[in-house]
Amino acid sequence: MSKADKIKARAPRGFADRNPADLAATERMLAAIRESYELYGFEGVETPFVEYTDSLGKFLPDQDRPNEGVFSFQDDDEQWLSLRYDLTAPLARYVAENFDALPKPYRSYRAGWVFRNEKPGPGRFRQFMQFDADTVGAASVAADAEICMMAADTMERLGLKRGDFIIKINNRKVLDGVLEAIGLGGDDKAGQRLTVLRAIDKLDRLGPEGVSQLLGAGRKDESGDFTKGAGLEPNAIERVLAFTAAKGQDNAATVENLRKVVGSSTRGLEGADELAEIASLVASSGYEDRVTIDPSVVRGLEYYTGPVYEAELTFQVQDEDGRPVRFGSVGGGGRYDGLVGRFRSEPVPATGFSIGVSRLLSALQMVKSPIVSGSEKPGPVVVLVMDRDQIAAYQRMVSALRQAGIRAELYLGSSGMKAQMKYADRRGSPCVIIQGSNERERGEVEIKDLIEGAKAAQAIASNEEWKAARPAQFSVAESKLVEAVREVLARHFG
Amino acid sequence: MSKADKIKARAPRGFADRNPADLAATERMLAAIRESYELYGFEGVETPFVEYTDSLGKFLPDQDRPNEGVFSFQDDDEQWLSLRYDLTAPLARYVAENFDALPKPYRSYRAGWVFRNEKPGPGRFRQFMQFDADTVGAASVAADAEICMMAADTMERLGLKRGDFIIKINNRKVLDGVLEAIGLGGDDKAGQRLTVLRAIDKLDRLGPEGVSQLLGAGRKDESGDFTKGAGLEPNAIERVLAFTAAKGQDNAATVENLRKVVGSSTRGLEGADELAEIASLVASSGYEDRVTIDPSVVRGLEYYTGPVYEAELTFQVQDEDGRPVRFGSVGGGGRYDGLVGRFRSEPVPATGFSIGVSRLLSALQMVKSPIVSGSEKPGPVVVLVMDRDQIAAYQRMVSALRQAGIRAELYLGSSGMKAQMKYADRRGSPCVIIQGSNERERGEVEIKDLIEGAKAAQAIASNEEWKAARPAQFSVAESKLVEAVREVLARHFG
Repeated sequence: MSKADKIKARAPRGFADRNPADLAATERMLAAIRESYELYGFEGVETPFVEYTDSLGKFLPDQDRPNEGVFSFQDDDEQWLSLRYDLTAPLARYVAENFDALPKPYRSYRAGWVFRNEKPGPGRFRQFMQFDADTVGAASVAADAEICMMAADTMERLGLKRGDFIIKINNRKVLDGVLEAIGLGGDDKAGQRLTVLRAIDKLDRLGPEGVSQLLGAGRKDESGDFTKGAGLEPNAIERVLAFTAAKGQDNAATVENLRKVVGSSTRGLEGADELAEIASLVASSGYEDRVTIDPSVVRGLEYYTGPVYEAELTFQVQDEDGRPVRFGSVGGGGRYDGLVGRFRSEPVPATGFSIGVSRLLSALQMVKSPIVSGSEKPGPVVVLVMDRDQIAAYQRMVSALRQAGIRAELYLGSSGMKAQMKYADRRGSPCVIIQGSNERERGEVEIKDLIEGAKAAQAIASNEEWKAARPAQFSVAESKLVEAVREVLARHFG
Repeated sequence: MSKADKIKARAPRGFADRNPADLAATERMLAAIRESYELYGFEGVETPFVEYTDSLGKFLPDQDRPNEGVFSFQDDDEQWLSLRYDLTAPLARYVAENFDALPKPYRSYRAGWVFRNEKPGPGRFRQFMQFDADTVGAASVAADAEICMMAADTMERLGLKRGDFIIKINNRKVLDGVLEAIGLGGDDKAGQRLTVLRAIDKLDRLGPEGVSQLLGAGRKDESGDFTKGAGLEPNAIERVLAFTAAKGQDNAATVENLRKVVGSSTRGLEGADELAEIASLVASSGYEDRVTIDPSVVRGLEYYTGPVYEAELTFQVQDEDGRPVRFGSVGGGGRYDGLVGRFRSEPVPATGFSIGVSRLLSALQMVKSPIVSGSEKPGPVVVLVMDRDQIAAYQRMVSALRQAGIRAELYLGSSGMKAQMKYADRRGSPCVIIQGSNERERGEVEIKDLIEGAKAAQAIASNEEWKAARPAQFSVAESKLVEAVREVLARHFG
């Protein structure tokens, strides 16, 4: 094959490889979340990466363009398959398929990769991980309250300090009441309601002024792009904004404000009552400082039917322009009483919470949580190859170290001493083992302590002095190899 | 939506859900494999599930039909993407892409799901997990020997007894020598060589007689289906079969037999020399009882260029017809010096081993390995809901238990006492907490020990006697709840 025929090695656009540090930090984080969820009685379950497209259908990001947003392909029996877009739709399918065999209410959790066929960008991947927990078969808002408290516990278990995060809760029924009151009730207004929802969902980023434009005629952004608005009248816009700003000094005050905003709407008042009940459950368990009613949270997805909630990190970071901003949302969810019912003749209530794993991980790294910044394991002890005809003897040393539980390697390349030392350095080796013909004749091995050596190198000025002193380097009888390496490791890693 | 419009809830053909027991057993097994690989100096790395189709191209199961066997879809820039078919091709892409940044030789491992667009069948899934380890950049067969010893250590760490498994090793160069000797050398014979390879790979299942037919005119199987053969002459068939049967009483004897079979072929003799070197390394580390040269192992994939190896479990199980058979292969691999070179101008030697995770898991379950049959965790303590207006009080008890690290739940359904007890039973709860109005007035809670209760139920004959004795049920002051539950747990789970 000529050089020109070579295939360019590259991961596809929007897909990324993961290095050992990433893998280890993520693994520790997932384990901590699992522990937290199991304490709440949730149990693991996993669904495959592929589902029939019709099982996901209703929950595509945009119903008008059912093939947008997901990766789909046709099976040989002509049925359409899709890579899962989130973990909620597959769970709904799973519960419907196994309904009679599952305990109800059914609490479960799962971490998994999901796929979006969207334009990739900086920090925007087409494959990313979510960690979900859902309670299916519980109509009571005690289930929503429980998930919010569990989210709070999980943030603390992950090393976030109280005050650095807040679980915000709201209720779609209250919003529905407001929309009803301004004449946006009924099936024929569904599209307009979704536009309102998405406008409110941008409150964090655009502020009331921008949202007000999106609720009215529309908004031109900084790049000049125009987004068509929901076309509401000024007094309707005012009412919607009053709803989002209804937060009072405590949960009781917020609920009172909301009752005023919804007026006489039955659905709106039902929503306010549910929030009052959640507030009471949260207070009785002592979580009122971590779980708070906040009407500015609506969540951008259409399918929520009751309480919606969001986990927000409140500490400050700098945005792209260097301005201080709150870190923001790392997860969210809500009640979706309609999803399982798509598959069954009776309605099945459900509520669930989803964590954005990468985003939460970067937050934990930012606050230096011990969960993700735990000290890395030492690299392997490297046995250097001084004489190629002695490989079997070197291999025997490596095996002896491994059998003693010490991470060890035979140098497997074909390079000389200098490159071998460089390799050991790159692997983070605590020490290397050297046996040339001189050592072999004496029945000895030489151990070079690389950590000690690096310290000494900083202290010793000249190359000559270094060569004369040869710090951190000593010989032992070959039979004492394991023992001597153990001592080196104990010196540096306790 | 009418009932007729409901979507049928079902996982796609060939895709399966995973229950908590599966997840936990797999998790423990993967952790043990990781530990073993890290001891050998391997480090984790993961690639995405999707690759450009041209990156996988050469390694599709069948080159003649490049779209068969993989799930593919076109990106919006018209490039073809595929779900990864194995973990080897993506690793080759990863190493080529990050070549300068990686230490060399580069040892890495990864567990991951792979996808095959094949006809599903019993035990044949279209999504399954592999656990791979590869050494890239080491031309020395010491790298192959190391992976074989690591595979042996891993089997033992997973709870398989010495003697219940064997790592078999062979060398494609020896086979190439044999094929050269019978006139199958040269690029134009590649197709015929692949047919021979696949015929030998069926030795285990079809025996020498069946393989002989596949090497000759062809073979009609029990169902009457005819498979075209490689079309070799009788003396060529004999020579190939002699190669597969060249195993001697020890590794040295096998190498001698192989030298005879390859005759004067340079490549064949080089292969025999490499096997002799591997045998010497294995023996010097004391693994000759677990790693053995076996010429019947060839591996069915085209891309291997040197040593090939297979981990076989030797204990007997029954086949579909109730006949005793060896459990068989749980993993394999070999040297693939060409894969990374597809992307780069210089050749890059590499060797790797892949475990079939589900198959190995079922083997471990069969031999009752402690790694996968570890005792399950107790279910959650369930606080029953006796009075719906007291939910906040029940929630407080649940929170207290959780804060003490005890897995606990509030019953979140709307059913009565009997259904709640049934729920607790189904969840494997060690005990339930009951507080009706009587207990509340006394400031007490009642604790029902379900494990003790189940034992007592077996011993007590009549329902009346049961009601009179009420075994395994006691009251404590509400303030002593956590303490009392701790005692119940300690009684049953130490």
